[in-house]
Amino acid sequence: MTLPITFLSDYGLADEFAGVVHAVIARICPQAQVVDLGHGVPRQDVAAGARMLARALPYAAPGVHLAVVDPQVGARRRALALRTVEEDRLGGVAEAVEISASPWRLDPVSATFHGRDLFAPVAARLAAGEPLGEAGTPLEPGELVRIELTRARVEEGGLVARVVERDGFGNLALDATHRDLAEAGMRLGGPIGVRFSGRRASGTYVRTFADVRRGGLLLYEDAGGAPAIAVNGGDAGALLGVRPGDELRLEPG
Amino acid sequence: MTLPITFLSDYGLADEFAGVVHAVIARICPQAQVVDLGHGVPRQDVAAGARMLARALPYAAPGVHLAVVDPQVGARRRALALRTVEEDRLGGVAEAVEISASPWRLDPVSATFHGRDLFAPVAARLAAGEPLGEAGTPLEPGELVRIELTRARVEEGGLVARVVERDGFGNLALDATHRDLAEAGMRLGGPIGVRFSGRRASGTYVRTFADVRRGGLLLYEDAGGAPAIAVNGGDAGALLGVRPGDELRLEPG
Amino acid sequence: MTLPITFLSDYGLADEFAGVVHAVIARICPQAQVVDLGHGVPRQDVAAGARMLARALPYAAPGVHLAVVDPQVGARRRALALRTVEEDRLGGVAEAVEISASPWRLDPVSATFHGRDLFAPVAARLAAGEPLGEAGTPLEPGELVRIELTRARVEEGGLVARVVERDGFGNLALDATHRDLAEAGMRLGGPIGVRFSGRRASGTYVRTFADVRRGGLLLYEDAGGAPAIAVNGGDAGALLGVRPGDELRLEPG
Repeated sequence: MTLPITFLSDYGLADEFAGVVHAVIARICPQAQVVDLGHGVPRQDVAAGARMLARALPYAAPGVHLAVVDPQVGARRRALALRTVEEDRLGGVAEAVEISASPWRLDPVSATFHGRDLFAPVAARLAAGEPLGEAGTPLEPGELVRIELTRARVEEGGLVARVVERDGFGNLALDATHRDLAEAGMRLGGPIGVRFSGRRASGTYVRTFADVRRGGLLLYEDAGGAPAIAVNGGDAGALLGVRPGDELRLEPG
Repeated sequence: MTLPITFLSDYGLADEFAGVVHAVIARICPQAQVVDLGHGVPRQDVAAGARMLARALPYAAPGVHLAVVDPQVGARRRALALRTVEEDRLGGVAEAVEISASPWRLDPVSATFHGRDLFAPVAARLAAGEPLGEAGTPLEPGELVRIELTRARVEEGGLVARVVERDGFGNLALDATHRDLAEAGMRLGGPIGVRFSGRRASGTYVRTFADVRRGGLLLYEDAGGAPAIAVNGGDAGALLGVRPGDELRLEPG
Repeated sequence: MTLPITFLSDYGLADEFAGVVHAVIARICPQAQVVDLGHGVPRQDVAAGARMLARALPYAAPGVHLAVVDPQVGARRRALALRTVEEDRLGGVAEAVEISASPWRLDPVSATFHGRDLFAPVAARLAAGEPLGEAGTPLEPGELVRIELTRARVEEGGLVARVVERDGFGNLALDATHRDLAEAGMRLGGPIGVRFSGRRASGTYVRTFADVRRGGLLLYEDAGGAPAIAVNGGDAGALLGVRPGDELRLEPG
């Protein structure tokens, strides 16, 4: 049985990179269905890619998930293929294999395009049902490095949160939880303030965009369940002059 | 028999939104073919999305057509699925169902990502052959609201037309017809003027880009049959400083 | 047997153009697999499109390759379908047919959207197995025009190379070969200089991005085997103020 493949990367769509990866997969396993989760991960931003993958995978069918965001092409990072514990695609790792010298690679492997030369043929062969163990060299669980993600903190009646992502609409996802907002004194339906770089913008903590007037600032729970800041019909990132990585202070009232 | 699906949205491709919709469809109805008509509808611009859909659908196979452009996420708009009169995909509605509380929805439905939680599962189940009537609650024809689109008008020897769209090349589609141009005195092969914001640019009314020199302004009939303004090898929107929604005056001579 | 199709164009993804081409193909030959190689060819840049195609095709399965970059829509260029010599998709032409008046075209053929009206139906019918000879009118080999591509030249201890492409990361592909660099005195691992517009930037000739510090300028061999200039984690095009078509001077030391 052929497994479906999802594909996420930081390749963008200006070049042929994502297309060539598709071509390699189609050549090796033409019957595999490939779903592009997206190719707009900010360049080399492994944490942002991990967040996009974590948001998307619960909605995907079980199968092969190809994700390529290379912090330093050709550097000391290792190319991996993992098998997860059944029914838990975001958690436990059941088997890990290093594929840098995979017997399935395209020869010669280029120095800079491992998506094409390593990851695509490995994904295609796994989709075709070949065993993960033959994709490369086994890794010990202790050799895996887990990404450390930042976390908002309550401070003197406010919440200091980091902008972890700015989407195509300018909406700003925060490294906070619903509970953090409550602990810092913010209540659904109540006014909030956002401080950044010496300025303060006023908004409302609401359920949906339509709960504020057009152009109004809102704090809401995004589709993934995490607090986010937006402007109804506008661009919150542009309004606040904020970029991913910046720290904001959220306050009640 | 599985129906094919087309998919149009204002999600853009920077995020994983369109990809996750694909993932949901593939999970529910993996055998359905999904054709992306595009995800570049200007944000929340329902009229622009309707025009793109009207241009594209006559070329698509009969099937399920998923179009998501949400003017106000979570607002009073209602999520609909329609069945059209056979052989007339742009006109008559044979059956209408509100799907906001569809039994096919993904639970819990988020406040902001109805493409994933409502529209994708409904499209997938319809593609799989399930009956529209089971997708939600029937609507009376009188409850449907038809979009009002603007229309160019002849005035004192000229034509006042609105720019309804600016494509990726900077070409400007107008809310006019070939007949409007004739009524305002413009003739194929003849000179024309475009007035906007106190300035006037000169061009020619021609059949194709190649009928003017590189850098020349032209008025032509676009692939959809509507008059449009372009610069051969350039960007008419940038040249004229015009954006969708702006009104231009076109004149003969 | 249905052939797979690849699809490359300069349509971009802001509009529905690429999507409509997909829709036409899916309507005529729904069982054909279509792989998008990309739609980000710089507008009307036939040479850039040819380079992207040459880099991608060796990785694609044999089949139908649809490439649409129209230098002057509706102009004297002729719409072609070619069959290549077996096992040599980048070289010899075994059969050439002009398809401008193809019996397979969609009628009426628009003046500006030949991708939809000519190329898509021809690609779909070829994928379905119909013979190339029936797609249009035979061409003599002598009627074909081969694209002339520029070539770097060694001059007084340096190499004058043209930037042939700037990818989505700002990396600059050159019209040079590894051998050109050696002839001009540059050695792998050694320092290099890049002169443009009266300024000089210093960098290193290395194998991979990781061989220089973050923000460092590097000369390297890209995935296609051609020399390119980049900034590790940055945008070489922006740093140097260089655009495709500009000539740079590379020097050892």
